[in-house]
Amino acid sequence: MQTTLAPSSLFQQHEAAILKAVSAIHDRRFYAHFPEAPSKNIYGENAATDGIQAFQQQLANPFVLRQDHDHLADTDEQSPYTQKALGITYPAFKDPRSYTVRSLKAMNSWKTLDPASRAGILMESLERFRGRFFEMAHATMHTTGQAFVMSFQASGPHAADRALEAIALGYHELTRFPQDNFEWVKPMGKFEIKMEKHYRQLPLGVSLCIGCSTFPVWNSLPGMYASLITGNPVLVKPHPTAIYPLAILVQELQQVLEEQGQDPHLVQLVVDRLAEPVAAHLAQSAEVKIIDFTGGNTFGDYLESLPGKVVFTEKAGVNSVIIDSVADIIPVAQNIAFSVSMYSGQMCTCPQDIFIPRSGIRTEAGHMPYEEVVNALVDAIRNIATNPQMGANVLGAIQSEATLKRLDLAREHGHRVLLEPATVTHPDFPDARFSGHLVLEVPAEDREMIGREWFGPIVLMVPVADTAHAAKLASELAASKGAISCLAYATDADTMDMIESEMADAAVSVSFNFTGMFWVNQNAGFSDFHVSGGNPAGNGSLTDPAFLVRRFVRVGSRVFRG
Amino acid sequence: MQTTLAPSSLFQQHEAAILKAVSAIHDRRFYAHFPEAPSKNIYGENAATDGIQAFQQQLANPFVLRQDHDHLADTDEQSPYTQKALGITYPAFKDPRSYTVRSLKAMNSWKTLDPASRAGILMESLERFRGRFFEMAHATMHTTGQAFVMSFQASGPHAADRALEAIALGYHELTRFPQDNFEWVKPMGKFEIKMEKHYRQLPLGVSLCIGCSTFPVWNSLPGMYASLITGNPVLVKPHPTAIYPLAILVQELQQVLEEQGQDPHLVQLVVDRLAEPVAAHLAQSAEVKIIDFTGGNTFGDYLESLPGKVVFTEKAGVNSVIIDSVADIIPVAQNIAFSVSMYSGQMCTCPQDIFIPRSGIRTEAGHMPYEEVVNALVDAIRNIATNPQMGANVLGAIQSEATLKRLDLAREHGHRVLLEPATVTHPDFPDARFSGHLVLEVPAEDREMIGREWFGPIVLMVPVADTAHAAKLASELAASKGAISCLAYATDADTMDMIESEMADAAVSVSFNFTGMFWVNQNAGFSDFHVSGGNPAGNGSLTDPAFLVRRFVRVGSRVFRG
Repeated sequence: MQTTLAPSSLFQQHEAAILKAVSAIHDRRFYAHFPEAPSKNIYGENAATDGIQAFQQQLANPFVLRQDHDHLADTDEQSPYTQKALGITYPAFKDPRSYTVRSLKAMNSWKTLDPASRAGILMESLERFRGRFFEMAHATMHTTGQAFVMSFQASGPHAADRALEAIALGYHELTRFPQDNFEWVKPMGKFEIKMEKHYRQLPLGVSLCIGCSTFPVWNSLPGMYASLITGNPVLVKPHPTAIYPLAILVQELQQVLEEQGQDPHLVQLVVDRLAEPVAAHLAQSAEVKIIDFTGGNTFGDYLESLPGKVVFTEKAGVNSVIIDSVADIIPVAQNIAFSVSMYSGQMCTCPQDIFIPRSGIRTEAGHMPYEEVVNALVDAIRNIATNPQMGANVLGAIQSEATLKRLDLAREHGHRVLLEPATVTHPDFPDARFSGHLVLEVPAEDREMIGREWFGPIVLMVPVADTAHAAKLASELAASKGAISCLAYATDADTMDMIESEMADAAVSVSFNFTGMFWVNQNAGFSDFHVSGGNPAGNGSLTDPAFLVRRFVRVGSRVFRG
Repeated sequence: MQTTLAPSSLFQQHEAAILKAVSAIHDRRFYAHFPEAPSKNIYGENAATDGIQAFQQQLANPFVLRQDHDHLADTDEQSPYTQKALGITYPAFKDPRSYTVRSLKAMNSWKTLDPASRAGILMESLERFRGRFFEMAHATMHTTGQAFVMSFQASGPHAADRALEAIALGYHELTRFPQDNFEWVKPMGKFEIKMEKHYRQLPLGVSLCIGCSTFPVWNSLPGMYASLITGNPVLVKPHPTAIYPLAILVQELQQVLEEQGQDPHLVQLVVDRLAEPVAAHLAQSAEVKIIDFTGGNTFGDYLESLPGKVVFTEKAGVNSVIIDSVADIIPVAQNIAFSVSMYSGQMCTCPQDIFIPRSGIRTEAGHMPYEEVVNALVDAIRNIATNPQMGANVLGAIQSEATLKRLDLAREHGHRVLLEPATVTHPDFPDARFSGHLVLEVPAEDREMIGREWFGPIVLMVPVADTAHAAKLASELAASKGAISCLAYATDADTMDMIESEMADAAVSVSFNFTGMFWVNQNAGFSDFHVSGGNPAGNGSLTDPAFLVRRFVRVGSRVFRG
């Protein structure tokens, strides 16, 4: 049951959660508002079956949104697991201006709401979204190819937590200066000057959120909610192959907005086709003032070059692993192998270039030659793919045919093949687009090869002179090509410092000595700032203060009172 | 006497002032750290005479800085009061790369200092600058043409307060998240994952500060100190006609830096000539990552278009006055006349277009026809210029010959001349470049004329249908041409709301019903956000959080601890 509450009472209802999030953001220690386990004990006995049912009922049917439209649009959504079209249609306009007109109209009321009322409404939409995490998991699986658990976590609780971060940090930034009229009194010796002042905090205009095909929700929610909390209307333009997941959020937002007397067109879904993209057209339009983008460099660089827009991008990069010394190679190899295997390397945080000293590494059991290190890694990577219990559930499916073709492209460079892609199968999905990893050994001299992002199940082992050489290379690649993560193994503090300093020169965060059940790919909400904004992999960071404060301006009023 | 203190003890020395500033920034009520009165009681018995002596000794002499150079450069500095060259030479390099190389070298040490140490050093430089406010006043007078009191206040205490704002807000932003290693512990049911984390907060690279000719210090200090507190080296590139004022700051900064064991090249003065400008060359260089600019639209727009740079601009605009209703026209006319007269309208916040309903306005004494309102304004403007006690001391001198020529250009449009420029004289400066105001009546239909910035002593009276028409016009001009201020007179709350809302659509702050000793041109440190960033007059705001947080990135380190 949904009850219509006044905005202020929605804030009261969610105030504790929002303030706790503000405090967690400033604390940076572990915090999660939405539990990540897809468990009955947490989400209810029927949540899983309800979720899959909702998903199945949606397939081949129109997606119902509270937004004007002149037709129902077909899409390019196709499940990487069945390689069949989802057949969902979405409400759409032929003329992109039909969206921005409605955005601006909706903004008129939304921008006058106080930050608390906005925060209450937005938080309510996340709480309702919680009830659809299982449907979301299937929607994500069958658009991105992610395995079920990752789909659930990344598009559900983890994404919701990052959205909550945006709401909470936005609420904090919007309330850190006086909200109401205050007196300003300047002593002038024998008299004083009095004024009454206040500030309006104004949105910039239409915010365009351009989603990606692999993490449509996790990557888009922070920007969407950051723009909304700061008063901007949002056009959600998903990747043409991954619309359904974001449509769920738009639906929940529109529903709450309408109940609260706001214009649901504040958040509109904009769908397009691969053959007829609309993002550039919208990005150029004068009404669009904010752009959030996840995707390739060419379009990202173009968006960054648009004058007069606030643009946040996350683009391609080349992530490195540096192995200097380890306690025991086995858990290290397993951790690295899992990092590269998760979702078949279709993650912006996934390692690609693994730098290993040609002379070998130190371990607690003594010196280990280069070839042994490589073999341990290759074995661990192979073992995941060929493990019938794990394989497909770690690797997930390949989102795009282009990613599979990339394996052939990589092979054409003629480098030594250390591992040919294993055949991966899943009993439930005989037609799925799966692939094991291609592992190549590439000399450091082939800078073109190691400096390119080989998005997908491709790993490059790069022999280097020593750890300093590795760090220098990794840092140079990151500075010139971009990088979001760096995984390093070193047992002494000096080497760790050296690596951290080198990577800091390229503004890359370093994860040291990861073993066990946590991987460099993972960025924890409320703790890790995702993407530094200091190298070509992206020009902003989720979710730091700049991500919020750039989305609104302050305009003052001073009334002379004598 | 200057003592060499360890950075930490400099912070201890200034901690109370910095924390008080942080609190004042969040309070927004009246606050000033540096007193604005050029008084003996505050600045000491000999401060005034010492100041003028220092100024006179500097004229026609090399300016001594602690920075490498390959020659002493001549400049275009000429006093608007004597129309004679100042004859000061400054250390300079022929090759601009010589500066950036030294900047990056200096950054290596500066970026590793903790925020408190940086804040202590920067605050110390401001405290020493305090001892040179009187010299600064003369340096500003004889480069910008400002009258003495404005020179003292704007380039001295007011500028120092805005610099303190930048230090304090930067210190706050750099310390709001954990500074040291902290533990992150994720519960995983039967076990937990432990990590040790910290963040480095890294500068972006070389920061280029491009000064203007009219407010070289007030407009430049916030960006300089914002970049410095966040770890960036700064190249201070003053306008070729107003170098001396900024050179004083560079000198003080270099002195403190050297005493504190930092490389004084962290802040370097870069001088150029009008005929051989160097700013574009530096702005394009890969090492320059941050640009602060005050000046014209053409170059400002160009700088904003440079890819991959963080750019803060303050450009031209058209500021309006809207007169709807007043208690008494006399104090209103006096206030407006003083606002347009101060420094002969050579201020970015100075009103230009005065909108008056053709049908007249309401006053407490009854209806007042349009012509009477205009006459009251014109009389008040004339009275300031022709008042032998006040004239030159309010108007100051005209900084640039081009500004004088603008009067002829404006006259050529053929509109009704309401006031011809009075002849202004000052007994001490018979050769000064003075001018009274040209006041024209321009119909609202001449959008080209009223929509252009007529920088200098030019005022346009614009008859309009009514107040709604005035607000609409003012807002449209601001949205398309930019505006920093709006002065409005209205006696009822509904009209005030209407005007405020209209101007908010163009992101312009409104000052209501100003009379007496405070003028719309003035922006109070710690209270008024200067420039909204929401219209073409500028893309940033002094000194809001975005002004600081965009100048650094955060890079994390995560060490797995089991």
